[in-house]
Amino acid sequence: MIDSIKAFLLKPVFYDNWSDVEVKGWIASNRGNKKIRFLEINDGSTIQNLQVVFKGSNFDFELLDSLRPGAAVIIKGILRATPNSPQPIELVASELVAYKNVAEDYPIQNQEIKLETLRDLPHLRHRTTILRAIMLIRSTLAHEVHKYFMNQEFHYLNSPIITSNDGEGAGETFNVSDSSNSEPFFGKNKKATLGVTGQLHGESYALGMQKIYTFGPTFRAERSNTKKHLAEFWMIEPEMAFYDLTKTISLADDMLKVIIRNTLAKHKSEFEYLNLVNQGLIERLKSFINSPIKIVDYTQAIDDLAKVKDIFENQDIHYGLDLATEHEKYLTEKVYSSPIAVINFPKDFKAFYMKQNDDGKSVAAFDLLVPGIGELIGGSQRECDYQKILTRVKELNIDQADLQWYLDLRRFGHIMSSGFGVGFERLVMYVTGTENIRDAIPYPRTTGNIRM
Amino acid sequence: MIDSIKAFLLKPVFYDNWSDVEVKGWIASNRGNKKIRFLEINDGSTIQNLQVVFKGSNFDFELLDSLRPGAAVIIKGILRATPNSPQPIELVASELVAYKNVAEDYPIQNQEIKLETLRDLPHLRHRTTILRAIMLIRSTLAHEVHKYFMNQEFHYLNSPIITSNDGEGAGETFNVSDSSNSEPFFGKNKKATLGVTGQLHGESYALGMQKIYTFGPTFRAERSNTKKHLAEFWMIEPEMAFYDLTKTISLADDMLKVIIRNTLAKHKSEFEYLNLVNQGLIERLKSFINSPIKIVDYTQAIDDLAKVKDIFENQDIHYGLDLATEHEKYLTEKVYSSPIAVINFPKDFKAFYMKQNDDGKSVAAFDLLVPGIGELIGGSQRECDYQKILTRVKELNIDQADLQWYLDLRRFGHIMSSGFGVGFERLVMYVTGTENIRDAIPYPRTTGNIRM
Repeated sequence: MIDSIKAFLLKPVFYDNWSDVEVKGWIASNRGNKKIRFLEINDGSTIQNLQVVFKGSNFDFELLDSLRPGAAVIIKGILRATPNSPQPIELVASELVAYKNVAEDYPIQNQEIKLETLRDLPHLRHRTTILRAIMLIRSTLAHEVHKYFMNQEFHYLNSPIITSNDGEGAGETFNVSDSSNSEPFFGKNKKATLGVTGQLHGESYALGMQKIYTFGPTFRAERSNTKKHLAEFWMIEPEMAFYDLTKTISLADDMLKVIIRNTLAKHKSEFEYLNLVNQGLIERLKSFINSPIKIVDYTQAIDDLAKVKDIFENQDIHYGLDLATEHEKYLTEKVYSSPIAVINFPKDFKAFYMKQNDDGKSVAAFDLLVPGIGELIGGSQRECDYQKILTRVKELNIDQADLQWYLDLRRFGHIMSSGFGVGFERLVMYVTGTENIRDAIPYPRTTGNIRM
Repeated sequence: MIDSIKAFLLKPVFYDNWSDVEVKGWIASNRGNKKIRFLEINDGSTIQNLQVVFKGSNFDFELLDSLRPGAAVIIKGILRATPNSPQPIELVASELVAYKNVAEDYPIQNQEIKLETLRDLPHLRHRTTILRAIMLIRSTLAHEVHKYFMNQEFHYLNSPIITSNDGEGAGETFNVSDSSNSEPFFGKNKKATLGVTGQLHGESYALGMQKIYTFGPTFRAERSNTKKHLAEFWMIEPEMAFYDLTKTISLADDMLKVIIRNTLAKHKSEFEYLNLVNQGLIERLKSFINSPIKIVDYTQAIDDLAKVKDIFENQDIHYGLDLATEHEKYLTEKVYSSPIAVINFPKDFKAFYMKQNDDGKSVAAFDLLVPGIGELIGGSQRECDYQKILTRVKELNIDQADLQWYLDLRRFGHIMSSGFGVGFERLVMYVTGTENIRDAIPYPRTTGNIRM
């Protein structure tokens, strides 16, 4: 059934004098006089508003005049094509079916409020044009992720949130407990933390289910206040048995391109608006979609960077360097002018579970870098040799007992597997041109901030 | 690209003598002698196995003989139609491309292991037929939920997991903290708990986005060890502005029927198998799909139950009774022989945010009951009158300060909204005929249990 403003706007020619239309939404603006009033209505389906015209003697113009932006209304009327106006259609009201005004202290009084101020209002800020645009695109991106993996015959896995593993063995974790004074909820001497990744459990399901992906919340108790970090964020983590590194990079690249292409197509007006806020956004995304990915060995990348090392803040370019954003952006934007996958990183700064290459110093890992942001995806082939991974665990002083179930997977029919992780809010930032990650998630959680 | 065993089996007629097929998977069984071997291979796409025949002089039959169930293999061969066999196709192997055997202590040695024993092996149990069937269906149900709401133009919302609200104000919550000794991570005197529902935040987004749904993890720190309770479970919670109770019940009913119908169609062999374990499963689901829902007032339900009260364990049937499962099942199975929505419950045992009816004693809530299980969905119209909800909050001694942002939504353009919640594992249990909720989620968490 077509009943959203978005659907009306997509097919305006169908609706010339289409009567008995009912529009439900919220007032975006209200102007006019005692004889004619123009209400702009938004119904949440798009950032675009529908103009509703009230004229004639059967309306209470004093009441109409009193309705402020944010008020909810249900209006019946006739949908009329307006080929000479900026908007292709308008609604000529026949009845104000229902309304509820907003209190005078409604804080979204205009569209000029700063993003920073809006962060104090996570329950209301999606009613501004910019946050509405971002959150509509976020929802569509999530849908496209699920669609993509469904179409590729992946199974959706819910990795546990509360876990006794701490994943990569690095980073701060949150502890979970209940208020009881008796024995800890999950048992004596049992760690109970919020998962920092769904990958380890994902690997267990890839063995037997072959192709799985997780898409769930993950947590880091880092007390940093940057534009790129959240304590609670959503991750997409596919894991595939029988995939090598090259096939995995192709999958990551294809996934990004498909979901971004479909999201662009679905949100023309939202992207046009965001393109005004962040010049060049649409062009950047289209260029990404149309540029084949290049694969660059880490040693090559170091050579590329060494040639121009003076331009960087960190100029100590050598084998063993963990690339910073400035390096990543230079590689993808200036050297290769395309998305690139840097592969075969030194094992020293990569996780213990990555497949060790024959050179004895690098691992079969990749970082997918894109112009404008740098790293968007990280992944690897997994070490499937039990002795090799065990040796690495011991080298790094990781508690083996906790991980034995995971290490055992190598002994139970594990020829090969690979996977990668996408921070969903990073992806939302990239696609919407949002600069602060707090504006890419409905209710952001950072140290000192747990509003609502 | 067609390359899964499921895809092969769906179109066997296409594959008579189709060469250069590569199958990747795990051995389910291995029989034969030194001249011919039959390996049953499962690749995770279905519970059905593909028979692979090895014969001829170019195979190492001692090696083939040594491969145990659970071993991973990649095999090339010719796909051949076998119209006179139980399975429509088999693979005649031309090459064993790769293999990795399982260690002798691989615990999944046969298919006769008890479900209870398998619960100690959450990282491996999906490699048994029954858990594979349940987990494949779980994945498809999740996909169908997303597809359903996408098709209905709902926006997907991620409600926060760590929250300072405790939702319904009832039940035990988990506390979240980090290991630091300094100020609490989220600030002094700030509660930080794992959310018991995404609904309240969902309501804030329904005002402005109109139709949203959440699908995320929720938590209860209940120290109960029943077949129906988990400490961590996934909830689907749609919330719609401008929906009344009747429209909301229609949506809940339609959603259930569509996702179950599509899941039945996609998993014929899995349901056939589960139907052997749980006689009548398919018939029960088909009957549900084909039975229109009936709406029954709570007072009518009490009258119905009072007539036969002697058959119940709890025989004190009176206005004010919170229906137990025995009552629910009797109503939906015996009295109405169809799914029913019981509506207008006494407000005393329902949540504070439900719309108060004019009779002063009931609320516009519904429980959707289905034969075989009882309650599957609960929901309500929300109270959108600020004074009424405030009075109720005070009556119930709920901390108003914490909830002020939520109560304020009533002052900011709130004509009407409704929503409901589906416990996803309960749905998986109903659809797969699973009796213990620990078998309906990959890594179950209950008091005393946080395996892996």
